[in-house]
Amino acid sequence: MRFILSLILSISISIGLSQSDSVIIKSFYNIALSEGKAYEDLRSLCKDVGARLSGSAEAAMAIDWGKKKLEGYKFDNVYLQEIMVPHWERGTKEAGWIKTSDNELHKVNLLALGGSIGTSGLIDAEVVSFNSLEELKEASKKDIEGKIVFLNQHMDEQQINTFKAYGGCYAIRGYGAVESSKLGAKALLIKSLGLPVDKHPHTGSMHYVDSVEKIPAAALSTVDADFLAESLEKGKLSFVLEMDCRDYPDVVSYNVIAEVTGSKNPNNIITFGGHLDSWDTGEGAHDDGAGIIHCMEALRLIKVNGYKPNNTLRLVFFMNEENGNNGGKSYATWAKDQKNENHIAALESDRGGFAPRGFHCDGSDEYVTLLKSFEKDLTQYDLHIFEKGYGGVDIGPLKSQFEGIPLFGFVPDSQRYFDFHHAPSDVFENVNKRELELGCAAIASMLYLLDQNL
Amino acid sequence: MRFILSLILSISISIGLSQSDSVIIKSFYNIALSEGKAYEDLRSLCKDVGARLSGSAEAAMAIDWGKKKLEGYKFDNVYLQEIMVPHWERGTKEAGWIKTSDNELHKVNLLALGGSIGTSGLIDAEVVSFNSLEELKEASKKDIEGKIVFLNQHMDEQQINTFKAYGGCYAIRGYGAVESSKLGAKALLIKSLGLPVDKHPHTGSMHYVDSVEKIPAAALSTVDADFLAESLEKGKLSFVLEMDCRDYPDVVSYNVIAEVTGSKNPNNIITFGGHLDSWDTGEGAHDDGAGIIHCMEALRLIKVNGYKPNNTLRLVFFMNEENGNNGGKSYATWAKDQKNENHIAALESDRGGFAPRGFHCDGSDEYVTLLKSFEKDLTQYDLHIFEKGYGGVDIGPLKSQFEGIPLFGFVPDSQRYFDFHHAPSDVFENVNKRELELGCAAIASMLYLLDQNL
Repeated sequence: MRFILSLILSISISIGLSQSDSVIIKSFYNIALSEGKAYEDLRSLCKDVGARLSGSAEAAMAIDWGKKKLEGYKFDNVYLQEIMVPHWERGTKEAGWIKTSDNELHKVNLLALGGSIGTSGLIDAEVVSFNSLEELKEASKKDIEGKIVFLNQHMDEQQINTFKAYGGCYAIRGYGAVESSKLGAKALLIKSLGLPVDKHPHTGSMHYVDSVEKIPAAALSTVDADFLAESLEKGKLSFVLEMDCRDYPDVVSYNVIAEVTGSKNPNNIITFGGHLDSWDTGEGAHDDGAGIIHCMEALRLIKVNGYKPNNTLRLVFFMNEENGNNGGKSYATWAKDQKNENHIAALESDRGGFAPRGFHCDGSDEYVTLLKSFEKDLTQYDLHIFEKGYGGVDIGPLKSQFEGIPLFGFVPDSQRYFDFHHAPSDVFENVNKRELELGCAAIASMLYLLDQNL
Repeated sequence: MRFILSLILSISISIGLSQSDSVIIKSFYNIALSEGKAYEDLRSLCKDVGARLSGSAEAAMAIDWGKKKLEGYKFDNVYLQEIMVPHWERGTKEAGWIKTSDNELHKVNLLALGGSIGTSGLIDAEVVSFNSLEELKEASKKDIEGKIVFLNQHMDEQQINTFKAYGGCYAIRGYGAVESSKLGAKALLIKSLGLPVDKHPHTGSMHYVDSVEKIPAAALSTVDADFLAESLEKGKLSFVLEMDCRDYPDVVSYNVIAEVTGSKNPNNIITFGGHLDSWDTGEGAHDDGAGIIHCMEALRLIKVNGYKPNNTLRLVFFMNEENGNNGGKSYATWAKDQKNENHIAALESDRGGFAPRGFHCDGSDEYVTLLKSFEKDLTQYDLHIFEKGYGGVDIGPLKSQFEGIPLFGFVPDSQRYFDFHHAPSDVFENVNKRELELGCAAIASMLYLLDQNL
């Protein structure tokens, strides 16, 4: 009898909780879709601030914008965490021309890779083409020396998950300059890491190493890369490159932070956010304006809905994800070493503002199982991915500071992301209002479920 | 021993089949994504032909376009099925103005609803507003007589599935004119059935009944509907409406048909397709250019891949889905009564060219179970909806002709569909290449699995 009573009791409690969960989650969605601030806030970030590369004046404006926004929403604590960031500027000259053997010129669309040195005037040299970094590494110095290397690898469009296609190409952008320079090249050109065949070049981070001479590196639009490849099939040709991008000394910058204090366990912290910096082209609308807005709106939904979290929900607009991740690294060490905090989970949105599909968990099986248990509450919102996977670049460093902390990554549909990633086309107009709003509600729901279950 | 042998045999066969399935499906995806014709074919349909309302010269051009395309792909049989369709034309004059009590004018963006009569000059009358058809029905004749009714119901943005929001509003467009006329109204204005707040009016079908006087009906863009509603809050106002749309006698038109003949059961037919007609605004890119292209490319993928179907796969470009469904109705009766055919399943794509999510089955539990069994083969392609649901308007009439036939509906993501549906913004540029291509491969895979398992 006692068993039956306790069974009934536990069923009642479980039904009670479940109903409450579903009502609260539905309310997040209703507010996001009917009275949401996300779309207007993204418009403001994209149009009032615009592109905002770490260390730039625009990044400083974005920090100011973010702090004011968070103060306006009256979260419990709004403050800045000081960090140091690199300061690289594209400069005012950036151009390239394909030059045939009879001196015909064809101007291309290109962008210097982030962190590249400039050309100090014009570089005019013969082009030698390879289909991958591996192929380049096997080449001999005599075939490369004094020439411009063109790495013509294209993203594998047959990958259903476009991030896998991106991962497969990353090496040409990240390490192409070093490998080309080792063989004596004067400069590097790559085919943009973008899926469509169009005229938008896609920039992004690259690496130098101290032991190898730095050479300039740029990405051609996919249309121009295809044209260059076709032209090379007809015979030898040169490329003329001019860029005056350069590094400046590191500067002070900030992560922007807001909290809703936990009502039961204020010292247990759930960090969530995206990155406030963007590349210096386009408006950083999907990357990662959408992530910033997702998370800010999620915290607003939680607050407006009157939900008092058990644990402290801490929203972080990370700075410098794109070219150094000093925001993420500094945050993790600051939280551990300076503040001696207790971090119980973290969540990131940095895959664009597309229709939500679910969440990944970078954590132990126990946390993956917990994530899967949320599916029943969220399946009616078209969410279906609840599995082991990647968290995010900004929250990544928390792993080494807080042993066993589970990291959660928001997973929107990936199909259109590499149409816009790091390109001039990553603008507000290419973000859909409903898709963005659904992401905000999905993240609010996830934060709620984590807060209830951790 | 015999048991064990037969067990091993059956396991081998099952593994063999399963590998074969996965290889074939992967190949559909690879071809669609790397060597697909879908995007260029959709461009051609949208740009070389354009909008193509039943009965129009453009619809005749689209039939010609479709037949040539199908012949070009060298399917087994390409032919036309003659049908009769309505012929309604928007005409050259179509305008509306909000007129305040002190004669200030504000011109609005509107579209006559499909099938509406014209205004025979200007209608200038006071506006009376209702929030739903139900509210209108409860009004008294004296409040409506001689006035223009404005049905200001907006789509419920809190519905996660946007088709449900559309369904909830359909009545104001479909039946608003009849109900307004019963109460003596001179004309009907509705708020467009579109989710964004923008300047694109959304047209669509409406109904008259013989016993009630016909009155003109038009849809205002959501921006203009909101402006009208705000203006009405300030006081009485009039609306000036001018439209010279009209009906013409029915004309001969065609469904366009192609087949790949079944190798084992040629008399068993699986019909699949979309509708070739569109509304006369925009380019019918998502509705239903995408569906036409999905299905044509799916059959091409099957053919190029060298798969010989067991049953006959019959592709139909249905005519006249938008304003009468004479294509779908005539096809079903022709197949049953004139051809005495054996139809074993049908599939339709008419929900736009967005990222695929899965399939619905309008059929018995046995077929729903079969559909669910396909999930294991298709989940790696980001497909997750395999459930009971709706088939499609064009294939719907097959149900009453072929008892027990299962109908399958392709389900792409619904979030952006009602940004473009029946609006000037339904153009090629608003269809994403990869999303379209993934739909083609999903449908080819589904046809393959149906062919293997029915």
